Amino acid sequence: MEKFELHILGCGSALPTTRHFPTSQVLNVRDKLFMIDCGEGAQLQFRKSKLKFSRLNHIFISHLHGDHCFGLPGLISTLNLLGRTAELHIHSPQGLEVLLRPVLDFFNRQMTYQVVYHPFDTHQPALIYEDRSITVTTIPLRHRMPTCGFLFSEKPRPNHILREMIDFYQVPVCELNRIKNGADFVTPDGEVVSNSRLTCPADPPRRYAYCSDTLPLASVARQVQGVDLLFHEATFADEDAPRAKETFHTTAVQAAVLAREGGVKRLLIGHFSARYEDENLLLEQACEVFPATLLAKEGLSVSV
Amino acid sequence: MEKFELHILGCGSALPTTRHFPTSQVLNVRDKLFMIDCGEGAQLQFRKSKLKFSRLNHIFISHLHGDHCFGLPGLISTLNLLGRTAELHIHSPQGLEVLLRPVLDFFNRQMTYQVVYHPFDTHQPALIYEDRSITVTTIPLRHRMPTCGFLFSEKPRPNHILREMIDFYQVPVCELNRIKNGADFVTPDGEVVSNSRLTCPADPPRRYAYCSDTLPLASVARQVQGVDLLFHEATFADEDAPRAKETFHTTAVQAAVLAREGGVKRLLIGHFSARYEDENLLLEQACEVFPATLLAKEGLSVSV
Repeated sequence: MEKFELHILGCGSALPTTRHFPTSQVLNVRDKLFMIDCGEGAQLQFRKSKLKFSRLNHIFISHLHGDHCFGLPGLISTLNLLGRTAELHIHSPQGLEVLLRPVLDFFNRQMTYQVVYHPFDTHQPALIYEDRSITVTTIPLRHRMPTCGFLFSEKPRPNHILREMIDFYQVPVCELNRIKNGADFVTPDGEVVSNSRLTCPADPPRRYAYCSDTLPLASVARQVQGVDLLFHEATFADEDAPRAKETFHTTAVQAAVLAREGGVKRLLIGHFSARYEDENLLLEQACEVFPATLLAKEGLSVSV
Repeated sequence: MEKFELHILGCGSALPTTRHFPTSQVLNVRDKLFMIDCGEGAQLQFRKSKLKFSRLNHIFISHLHGDHCFGLPGLISTLNLLGRTAELHIHSPQGLEVLLRPVLDFFNRQMTYQVVYHPFDTHQPALIYEDRSITVTTIPLRHRMPTCGFLFSEKPRPNHILREMIDFYQVPVCELNRIKNGADFVTPDGEVVSNSRLTCPADPPRRYAYCSDTLPLASVARQVQGVDLLFHEATFADEDAPRAKETFHTTAVQAAVLAREGGVKRLLIGHFSARYEDENLLLEQACEVFPATLLAKEGLSVSV
């Protein structure tokens, strides 16, 4: 299976603790790296995780709260010091460029590369990135300011060729692409060899959904239906549900209910409030509703 | 002895490594905390060091390079989340406010306290802070932009009263302050008791000097003459002296020579380039010239 791996750089919330960095993650899709949120210290954690800066071309920012983007000036300046030349693309709600540009202009007198800003609308799901292997779609969330999550979907891939059958029927090379894409093969004698005898199905496309910060939303459960992995914020424990509602956050139980309703394969919870000494409490509460729940942790990597 | 203690939050330079945070320190003077530089992640390291945010009222920024101040937005926002009401004073070269204010205004819709900016001139040593127990004076440095170090000096303190002698001569309470400040005591019989019989000298005032980033300067050696502790950047090893000169930095050996010329009691080196896997190389080079050299390290605290 090709790489589709999530790395947790930080999973705390706004107040620093001795155990957590603020929010940042990296999704590794076949050695292309996609950063999701960039809290303070993200570049330090990135370095620790042994990921390669040169593989990072796109950063997705969920919303403009400091604990989700204060790591950008440092990261961008470091890439400049390293002499990067490739464009760096930042996808975020409207407003980031006007804040960030003067800071970058001052602190990086000579930029060796260009930062390209891609503001997105936060009201409707929208395709904001696409390449040969994946698409990224926004997931509208509901927080104290315009916020979106992100759905990373692998594109379906052509069937695998069964080499021994290809040899057996002496299929010419020029036919291979058609066969990968589902065509049957007709031998010089006119015999039709059905595609299913020549190929086996590719691995099913995988999907990862990231949702933070937000109230729990039924629309999210629908949009992330059946994903392989859902990261959902679980800032608070069940007993602090009123506080969660007041601050437009989610409890561990609410995240688990959403995961169950969405029929996702696994749930990863994070964005923990500083008030909990031990987040296993949150894990236990979530697992009672949705047993396939994991606890985020700095340095954790999860194969999607 | 009253507290005069230095805490290292970060001692790396601009490029992140797996071992170092960018520059930040806290000087604890009798439980008042003074932050010196505020690189990315300073608030996280501050929290780890178990220092109290509420004791921090003054931040001194040596120069406006990102690795010395990108931690400010996060720290200031955290203090706001914590509901701080006391003013926070930031002393720095000209230009910080215009960069920082729009960021803080956007990310902290309602500030619970005021940030007060105190720009200082970087050409001449200047007294920029004073309270009952200490003064802070700038140390002009030479880097790629306006930069100053800081000299923290305890004020001389009144002599200690010798309680048994005060009792013996039946000195009235109203005389005590005069005696602490050096006056003799005249008994009702007209006998003059000299001050030296009634008091012993207070602990000598202590001094801490912070110098980063800079070329090695003779003027610094003069200004820090005899300090108890000198922190001096030692970004490079001896073999990289040309690179140090080119980037306006100092080598470990140059820092040690400066410490020797300044007759300081102890030298602490830091601001290590990311190129060295093990900074003991820098320590060894410095110790050959100035044996009383220490290596900075995250989490280190040194009593001045």
